[in-house]
Amino acid sequence: MLNYDLTQRGDTPLYRYLYSCIRKDIETGALAADTRLPSKRRLADALDISVNTVMTAYDLLVAEGFVYTAEKKGYYVSRLNYQAPKKKARPPKAAEPEERAWFMDFRAGHAPLDLFPTSLWAKCMREAISAADSLYTTVSWKGLAALRNAIAAELANHRGMTDVSPEQIVIGAGTEYLYGRLLEILGPGITIAGADTGASKFAQIAANHGDHWCYIPVDEKNMRADLISELPVDAVHLSPANLFPYGRSMPIDRRIAFFEWANATPGRWIIEDNYDAEFCFGPAVWRSMFSEDAHEKVIYLNTFSKTMVPTLRISFMVLPEALLKRYEETVSFYTCTVSSFEQYALALFIERGYYERHLLRLLHHYRKLRAAILDEIQQHTVLSQIITVENSDAGTHFLMTARTALTEAEIRARAESRSLRFHFFHPVYPNARPGEVRFIINFAAIDESRMHEVFARLGAVFDG
Amino acid sequence: MLNYDLTQRGDTPLYRYLYSCIRKDIETGALAADTRLPSKRRLADALDISVNTVMTAYDLLVAEGFVYTAEKKGYYVSRLNYQAPKKKARPPKAAEPEERAWFMDFRAGHAPLDLFPTSLWAKCMREAISAADSLYTTVSWKGLAALRNAIAAELANHRGMTDVSPEQIVIGAGTEYLYGRLLEILGPGITIAGADTGASKFAQIAANHGDHWCYIPVDEKNMRADLISELPVDAVHLSPANLFPYGRSMPIDRRIAFFEWANATPGRWIIEDNYDAEFCFGPAVWRSMFSEDAHEKVIYLNTFSKTMVPTLRISFMVLPEALLKRYEETVSFYTCTVSSFEQYALALFIERGYYERHLLRLLHHYRKLRAAILDEIQQHTVLSQIITVENSDAGTHFLMTARTALTEAEIRARAESRSLRFHFFHPVYPNARPGEVRFIINFAAIDESRMHEVFARLGAVFDG
Repeated sequence: MLNYDLTQRGDTPLYRYLYSCIRKDIETGALAADTRLPSKRRLADALDISVNTVMTAYDLLVAEGFVYTAEKKGYYVSRLNYQAPKKKARPPKAAEPEERAWFMDFRAGHAPLDLFPTSLWAKCMREAISAADSLYTTVSWKGLAALRNAIAAELANHRGMTDVSPEQIVIGAGTEYLYGRLLEILGPGITIAGADTGASKFAQIAANHGDHWCYIPVDEKNMRADLISELPVDAVHLSPANLFPYGRSMPIDRRIAFFEWANATPGRWIIEDNYDAEFCFGPAVWRSMFSEDAHEKVIYLNTFSKTMVPTLRISFMVLPEALLKRYEETVSFYTCTVSSFEQYALALFIERGYYERHLLRLLHHYRKLRAAILDEIQQHTVLSQIITVENSDAGTHFLMTARTALTEAEIRARAESRSLRFHFFHPVYPNARPGEVRFIINFAAIDESRMHEVFARLGAVFDG
Repeated sequence: MLNYDLTQRGDTPLYRYLYSCIRKDIETGALAADTRLPSKRRLADALDISVNTVMTAYDLLVAEGFVYTAEKKGYYVSRLNYQAPKKKARPPKAAEPEERAWFMDFRAGHAPLDLFPTSLWAKCMREAISAADSLYTTVSWKGLAALRNAIAAELANHRGMTDVSPEQIVIGAGTEYLYGRLLEILGPGITIAGADTGASKFAQIAANHGDHWCYIPVDEKNMRADLISELPVDAVHLSPANLFPYGRSMPIDRRIAFFEWANATPGRWIIEDNYDAEFCFGPAVWRSMFSEDAHEKVIYLNTFSKTMVPTLRISFMVLPEALLKRYEETVSFYTCTVSSFEQYALALFIERGYYERHLLRLLHHYRKLRAAILDEIQQHTVLSQIITVENSDAGTHFLMTARTALTEAEIRARAESRSLRFHFFHPVYPNARPGEVRFIINFAAIDESRMHEVFARLGAVFDG
C-alpha cells in the first residue's frame, strides 16, 4: 500500500502532492513496472482523503504516461526507461561582474557619467511611461515610426544627410544585432574587407554567419582601396568619417575609388560604420558616403550606445532602396528587438533637441579635454621626449607611440602597479617599429580633476 | 573669380558655407579639374571676408581631397571622377503601421491590455529610473545578474525548476534573437526537427543561418519521436508543455523517447520552447524537460513578451553546462541586447511578486473565458452542430474544426464582411479531411463583453 505522509505537503494541493509522491516512486523504481496501484477508494480510505483527490492524482499520472489503465482492472505502473537527473544543490545567486577600480582605464570608452543629462533622459522615460502608446503600440519590424522620424530629422538637420527617408531606417538592439541581419541578406559565404585596426568584432560576427573577412592595410587616407579589386570581395566595411583609432577621415579621391569598385559589378556593397563620427574637432564637415552615393551601394550604420549611455541598446541602419526590398523579403519576420517604450523615450529625447544639445556639450568637453591632454604630454619632461601622438581631429581617442626599450609586458606591469590600465594597439599586420610601443588613449573616460595625476603616473611608467 | 552670395548662408559658419559652395562647383564640374583657384587674399577681398575664413575653407577642401596645392603656386581643383547622387525631394515622415480595427481578430494573441498591471509595471520602471545603477551598471553578456537571479527564483518557486543556476541563464531581446545565437554555436549546417504545426519562424531563422529544418508530423502525444532516428537530425525543437495550436502536452514515454534519441550520440540536442506554457487549465503540473534531463541535453527557451506586453522584448534561454562553455567561447562577445534599465525594472517586478500575481490573475481569467467560450459554442444552434473543438487544457488558443461545404476563401470573405479576422490552421502536411476547415481560436484577445456577439457573428458566417 502507498503510504505517504501527507502532512509534509506544505502549500501544495493534496492531489498534486499525492501525484508527485507516486511519480517519484515510479521514477526511482520503488514502484516497479506493471505494479498494480491500489483502487481509488482503498487509497482514499487509507490516507483519509476523498476519492476525488485520488482520482485527480491518478488521472494526472495516466495523462502524463506514468500509469496506465486496464479496462475494469485498475491502474498499473508504466514500463518506462526513465533516468532521473541527479539532484543538484540549489544553485547560488549570480553577482554583477566586478571590475577592478582603476585610477585610469584607457580601455574604457565612455565619458564620465556626470556628463550624461540623466534628469532629461529620466524625464523622457517618465513621459513615455505615462503614454500608454509606448507600451502597446504595434511596432513595425523597422522600429517605431516616431523614432525613425526623429532620426531622419536629426540626420537631415545636423548631419547633412537630407536624403534619408524614415522608411529606409531599421532600428535594432545594437549594431552587432543589425550586422547579423545584414549578413543574412547579403550572405552567406560573402567576403567582407575591413580596415586592419586590430581584430574586429565584425569579423567574428561574419565568421559566425559563415562569411569571410579580410583585413586590408590602412594608409594616411584611411583604408586602402587599391588592394580590394584583386581580392574576391563582396562588401567593404568602412569608417570614412573616423577610422578608429587613427582618427583618419577619408578624402574624396579614396571615397571615389571605393564607389568605382562598388559600381563596377552588381552585388558589391559599402557598409559605412559611423561609430564615434559625431566627434570631429576640426573645421571638417561631417560627411557620410551614404549621401554621396549615386548608385544605392551604401548601407549606413550608427549607434546611440556611444553618444548616450552604453547600457542603452539602440542602433540603427539606413538601407539603400535596393536592399530594403530584399531585407523585407528575407528578414522582416524578425520582431524589432528594442522595446517600444525605449524607442518612444529616445524619440522624445531627440525631438526636443536634448540629444543635439547633449552632443554639442560632449563635443565641447572633448575638444577642451583633448587639448589639455596634448598640452599635459607636451609639458611632461619624460613623455614629451618619447611620445608621438597621431595627428587627428576626430574621435574620442588617439593613437600614441612611445619610443622605449621596455616590452609591452614590462609596461603593462609597471602601469598596473600604478593602477593604470593600458590599451595596446595591435593591428593584425603589426606596424610598430622596433623600439616602439603603440597604444590607444580613450580619452573620453578621463576625469579632468585626475588628468594631471594620470599623466604623472603615465610618465613614471616610462621613466627609468 | 568665385562669386558667391554669402548672405544666403543662414546659420552656417562662413568658412563652411564658402567650402560647400566651392565643393558643389567642383562636384558639378562648374570648376573644371586643374583650374587654379584665386589666391586666399584675392578671394577674401572679393567676398569682403577675412583671409582666415578663406584659408579654413581651402584647407578643408585640401584635407578632403577636392583641391590640391602646388608649392608656392596656389590651389588647384583636383581631377575627380565624382558622380553626385541625384537630389531627392525631402522624404515624407513615416507613420506607425495602421491595422484594421476588427470586431474580433483571431490572429491577435494577446490579452486585452486592461488586464496588464500597467501601474505596477510603471512603478517598477520609475524606481529603475531613480536607481542610477539601472543606467550605468556594466552588464555581463548573459544579462543583469539581478534579473537572472529573479528568473532562477521564479523558475524554482513556481515552475518546479529548482536546478537552474542564474549562471546558466542568458537574457536576450526576444526568442528569435537568442535562437540566432544558439544556431551560431550549434551550426552551421545542422538539421533541426520541429513539429509540423504550420510554417515556423524558427525554420526561417535556421535557413537564414545556413541550417536545415525538417517538419515532423504530430500525434496525440505531441511531436512524433519514431521518425527522427531515420533522419539526419542534430537537434529537436519541442514544446512539451503545450504544442501550439493543439495544446497537447507530451507524456513521459514520448519524452523518454526523445531523451533516448539525444543520449544515443554526442552532439544531439533538445531545444525546449516553453512559449505559452504558463497557461495550463487542468490539474497538470507544469513540467519542463530541462528538469527531467539527466545528461545536459536540453536548452530551455522562454519569453516575457507573451506574459507581459508584446512590445517588451525580453526572453531568456537556460543552457546546459556543456553548452555554456561553448557559448562563452563562441558568442559571448555579443553585448547583451536588452537595456540594463528594462532588465532592472523586470527584476523588481518579479522579485516583488507582481509577475506571479499577474500570471495567476491571467490564468484565472483565461480559464473562465475558455469555459464561457466553449459554453457559447455549445449553446449556439449552428455552431454546436458543425464545430469540433480539439480537447486540450493548455494555452491561450484552441484548434477548431468546422464541417462545412464552404471553402476557406468563402469563409474569409464572409468573416471579413462581419469584421472577423480568422486564423486558419495550415500545417505543412495538410491534415483536414474533405468538408472540413480548421482554424485557431486565439481566445486571449476576446473581450468578455463582446464574446456573445463574436460567436453570434461566427455562427452567421457558417449559417447558410
